[in-house]
Amino acid sequence: MSVNLCNILNIQSPIVAGGMIWCSGWELASAVSNEGGLGLIGAGSMSAEVLKEHIIKCKKATNKSFGVNVPLMNVNSPKHIQVIIEEKVPVVFTSAGNPSLYTKTLKENGIKVVHVIANEKFALKAQEAGVDAIVAEGFEAGGHNGKEETTTLVLVNEIVKKVSIPVIAAGGIATGEQILSVMTLGAQGVQIGTLFATSKESSAHENFKRAIISAKEGDTMLFLRKLSPTRLLKGGFFEKIKEAEERGASKEELLEIIGIGKTKLGMFDGNLDEGELEIGQVSISIEKEMSVKEIFEKLRKEYSIAKMNIQNISDTL
Amino acid sequence: MSVNLCNILNIQSPIVAGGMIWCSGWELASAVSNEGGLGLIGAGSMSAEVLKEHIIKCKKATNKSFGVNVPLMNVNSPKHIQVIIEEKVPVVFTSAGNPSLYTKTLKENGIKVVHVIANEKFALKAQEAGVDAIVAEGFEAGGHNGKEETTTLVLVNEIVKKVSIPVIAAGGIATGEQILSVMTLGAQGVQIGTLFATSKESSAHENFKRAIISAKEGDTMLFLRKLSPTRLLKGGFFEKIKEAEERGASKEELLEIIGIGKTKLGMFDGNLDEGELEIGQVSISIEKEMSVKEIFEKLRKEYSIAKMNIQNISDTL
Repeated sequence: MSVNLCNILNIQSPIVAGGMIWCSGWELASAVSNEGGLGLIGAGSMSAEVLKEHIIKCKKATNKSFGVNVPLMNVNSPKHIQVIIEEKVPVVFTSAGNPSLYTKTLKENGIKVVHVIANEKFALKAQEAGVDAIVAEGFEAGGHNGKEETTTLVLVNEIVKKVSIPVIAAGGIATGEQILSVMTLGAQGVQIGTLFATSKESSAHENFKRAIISAKEGDTMLFLRKLSPTRLLKGGFFEKIKEAEERGASKEELLEIIGIGKTKLGMFDGNLDEGELEIGQVSISIEKEMSVKEIFEKLRKEYSIAKMNIQNISDTL
Repeated sequence: MSVNLCNILNIQSPIVAGGMIWCSGWELASAVSNEGGLGLIGAGSMSAEVLKEHIIKCKKATNKSFGVNVPLMNVNSPKHIQVIIEEKVPVVFTSAGNPSLYTKTLKENGIKVVHVIANEKFALKAQEAGVDAIVAEGFEAGGHNGKEETTTLVLVNEIVKKVSIPVIAAGGIATGEQILSVMTLGAQGVQIGTLFATSKESSAHENFKRAIISAKEGDTMLFLRKLSPTRLLKGGFFEKIKEAEERGASKEELLEIIGIGKTKLGMFDGNLDEGELEIGQVSISIEKEMSVKEIFEKLRKEYSIAKMNIQNISDTL
């Protein structure tokens, strides 16, 4: 791999903070970029006007590279892309949609483009569309997820052999050991969501942050396979969906339970009973709320120790 | 970690071949042990008499350490344990049951005991029962699986921090990169199933082996959550279970579809339409049938390259 991810994204540390709905505003994004990683603003829960405000505030808070995550299925995405071009945002991560939609336009405007995939087909499609890098996101990731349910350990090892552009691993990463682990598979960087969702700079509600931190094994599960597979955190909404799916509820009934505005209600307003809570399996490893600075210190320390340890194991099997 | 897994199991290479029903007879087990790993005979599909024959043949085929996997929920397991003690098998892997059931007896007979777990609770229970090591098996593994659905990347990193005995990672491992990757998380060894199920020495039916080798992303899925979560390979049985679960089939109806003898029908007799096919997600990375010797050569080569590559990446983040 000759192309270096950090050079492409103009960052020092190959750590991207996922652009999460209701969590990733300008405060989280700029804090991550100021630590040398890549902060992303999550456009998925913003109107074009709100996104513009966040971009302007982010630019004031950091002079480093940052980006915006644009879920392409979102009705506002054409306007998001327009704002991003106007405001000369350095990097865009696109997800949940066709990578060929805006890649050319964005690149013509000097913007680096990364696309999120969960299978080989879309990895190749994204590469063909001319993106600069891809995020390979595994089954353990929070929120929307691939229908093949391939885990990060299996997916990343497979995808790096199929594409020639840099691969960023996502899903199941919240420790320095896990970062080194996916680099061993051939990833050049990582996208971390859940851990940053619990950070002090995250705009998630305190109730939601506390629920993530106290989560135990099995407290996040993948549901909604009939619509769009989504990893949810235990709570009233989770139980309702679980009960409905176990008795074979139809798409229509599931859509009715989901309703409108449930992610805001849960993740931003902190209603753990009625709101939809999207988060990753690594919740189990998070012990307390930390600042972005503390998170980077933790990851860097764990990574360095893991790197020393791995040097000491046998060179042969 | 001061206790060395290879010393405990009396092997040279920290690679265990999973003791799989209908795949792991004396031929596969002895071939793996002869390569320096630990071969396991899978007692799950054998009567006590058949197991005894396999043990005797395995001892003739190798003078190295080997073991037997005993699923404790199997009605024959008390007899399996008896045969194992009589035949002085060096190592036993227990799974799917209470680790305190036979650990003391086995250890009093000089037999090393390893227990398979998929969550923290059972990891601690196994350690308390006095086992020598545990296998931490993630969601991507074939066959019976943990109900928490924790992936190998998340599970192994968590379990190594909770126990003081050696941890063997399982699920999602079929390449040398994946071996190094889980070692980075703190595992001392790996248990590989799927890849050895396709080996020349495996007693799986050729039809089943070919189906594994040609599997694509999404072709294995976890089903039967209402009974005991099980990862299945696409085929007639898979489709029947999928259809039934989507419409909310009851435990009783699922049990009726499963019937009796379906794993033998699929995995040993090669009936891909009616038989139950249990296999792991790494099927997607297997390209051809290889001998155990060729598999070890492949893993060793990939591991050494991955080890060199990881040494060349930055020591700091």
